[in-house]
Amino acid sequence: VQVRVTEEELLAAIRKVAGADAPRVLVGIGDDAAVLEAGAGQLVLTSDMLVEGVHFERAWMSARDVGFKAASVNLSDLAAMAASPRHCLVSLGLPTPVDPAWVMEFFAGLQEACEEHGVSVVGGDLDRASAVVVSVTMTGEVSPGKAVLRSGALGGDAIAVTGFLGAAAGGLAVARASKRGVAGAPWARAVARAFARPTARVAEAQVLASAGAHAMMDISDGLASDLPRMCEASGVGAQLHTDELPVSEELRRGADTLGLDPIAVALSGGEDYELLVAIPSEALVAAAAELRERFGLPLTSVGRFTRARSVTVLGADDAERPLEPRGWDHFA
Amino acid sequence: VQVRVTEEELLAAIRKVAGADAPRVLVGIGDDAAVLEAGAGQLVLTSDMLVEGVHFERAWMSARDVGFKAASVNLSDLAAMAASPRHCLVSLGLPTPVDPAWVMEFFAGLQEACEEHGVSVVGGDLDRASAVVVSVTMTGEVSPGKAVLRSGALGGDAIAVTGFLGAAAGGLAVARASKRGVAGAPWARAVARAFARPTARVAEAQVLASAGAHAMMDISDGLASDLPRMCEASGVGAQLHTDELPVSEELRRGADTLGLDPIAVALSGGEDYELLVAIPSEALVAAAAELRERFGLPLTSVGRFTRARSVTVLGADDAERPLEPRGWDHFA
Repeated sequence: VQVRVTEEELLAAIRKVAGADAPRVLVGIGDDAAVLEAGAGQLVLTSDMLVEGVHFERAWMSARDVGFKAASVNLSDLAAMAASPRHCLVSLGLPTPVDPAWVMEFFAGLQEACEEHGVSVVGGDLDRASAVVVSVTMTGEVSPGKAVLRSGALGGDAIAVTGFLGAAAGGLAVARASKRGVAGAPWARAVARAFARPTARVAEAQVLASAGAHAMMDISDGLASDLPRMCEASGVGAQLHTDELPVSEELRRGADTLGLDPIAVALSGGEDYELLVAIPSEALVAAAAELRERFGLPLTSVGRFTRARSVTVLGADDAERPLEPRGWDHFA
Repeated sequence: VQVRVTEEELLAAIRKVAGADAPRVLVGIGDDAAVLEAGAGQLVLTSDMLVEGVHFERAWMSARDVGFKAASVNLSDLAAMAASPRHCLVSLGLPTPVDPAWVMEFFAGLQEACEEHGVSVVGGDLDRASAVVVSVTMTGEVSPGKAVLRSGALGGDAIAVTGFLGAAAGGLAVARASKRGVAGAPWARAVARAFARPTARVAEAQVLASAGAHAMMDISDGLASDLPRMCEASGVGAQLHTDELPVSEELRRGADTLGLDPIAVALSGGEDYELLVAIPSEALVAAAAELRERFGLPLTSVGRFTRARSVTVLGADDAERPLEPRGWDHFA
């Protein structure tokens, strides 16, 4: 049921969810701004926006999942710096009449992702908008000098990725094709979850940083877009081996039904929020063992950074081709 | 001319404007997140969203003004805490095809407001959206324990406001009625500017904090909405004297043309971003003198906070009525 709700009533409800008594929060939601005890480390800041009609439709993504994902994509950015997440601000644009149940479910999902990483929601803004717009800002902390940038990759480093690729793009295809009745299959449920509830690799990133990763970034727009960005920032090239890509097994299972090429999707699909890592070969095996043991998460070597600045793909046929960035351009 | 532009090209252009070599910025735009040297004080955080079709129309507000205002409203929130602004993140949702000139003008306006207060743009996000959506997050810093909250007003404190009220709402009316040909009059230009380019009272707020202000907030939704909020947060009431309101002279001049009641607009118009201050009577005169001398800005006493928790208005007829909050409810 949609009812008219005032901003004041909504803010009061959100304040109850948010909890101002979190660690280091001196002033939380309800004043002009939040006031927080500064940490001992350096401050890490990131912002990400989710827009209805672009990143999701309310018809096929629950409010809880939108909230969870809005937090997750920011947690993932902090993870990629090897930072520890701390606080969160959320600005929410809502079409009228506002559905209070949708808003409360959204905040429940946001909280769920935040709580998992000890993040407190300390502020934000509610506004009218023609479509739902979610803008989340998250703060994190890192010991001085310990942030892992995307600019540190060296020629000779292994190109490693955590987890599996392509599932999220499969999930988006499932969501869009939900009328076709594939949504009930186990593979379909798995890829839908990968899209709606990506896991930010926060603790995993800290293991990788300690293991000696030279550079990290999260794979948000697809490896085919994000690997060239890391190369550009680091002033190196790369040779990617497509037959070594850790393609999601569930995506493989559903590829025919969805009419997708699993390798192409793993390369260009985006939204998996796994980590792309430049790591010296001698550190790779130990890092992979620790990730598998502590988190059950694979770390797969998919090629090598090179001093030569070209970015190429080596296919199963051993032919080397330039990598075509075909990932997510937000304006394409 | 609208041309197709890739996100990569736009980001490169923005990076040039933003300047990563700002004080305390270790990593600026271009990585997964920004990394900043932590300050010595407490961290202050605020977020505000501007939505096309709700807060502005591109038909009557320039890109430069949208950028300036998006920064100003956040600067104003920091001012209201008596904080010193530091860093800024901006997420921008844009309809396609993207007009690169609009985006660059937007960032120029944002920069203009930021530079005035020594704020560096350190990150953000570009996304597709059906209407322009701007979400700005700003960080500030305050000496431990020195933030001025909205919850500190005491019965007996003077209710003081900086500057003049009602001009911004007059400016919005002028913008919406621009076809009626009033835009050229000097009063119309003045109120239009008040709406499009509000001045954040950053240094002024620090004077007020030093002078002994008990509570501050910025008047974003109109005094009739914001005064009851301060009363509620402080557990006090208030008696407001409408004939003491510092009504904008330009608004008075245009009121007939616009069909507006100046007193009602000064009370309920919103968007003036002046400061509402609870200050002991004995500190008021000195604070007002210092604001006038240093910034040419009036500080006007418009009534008194009371121990009794009712919020009332005393009109020119000496009749006392309950204050009806008629300010900006974002969902009304």
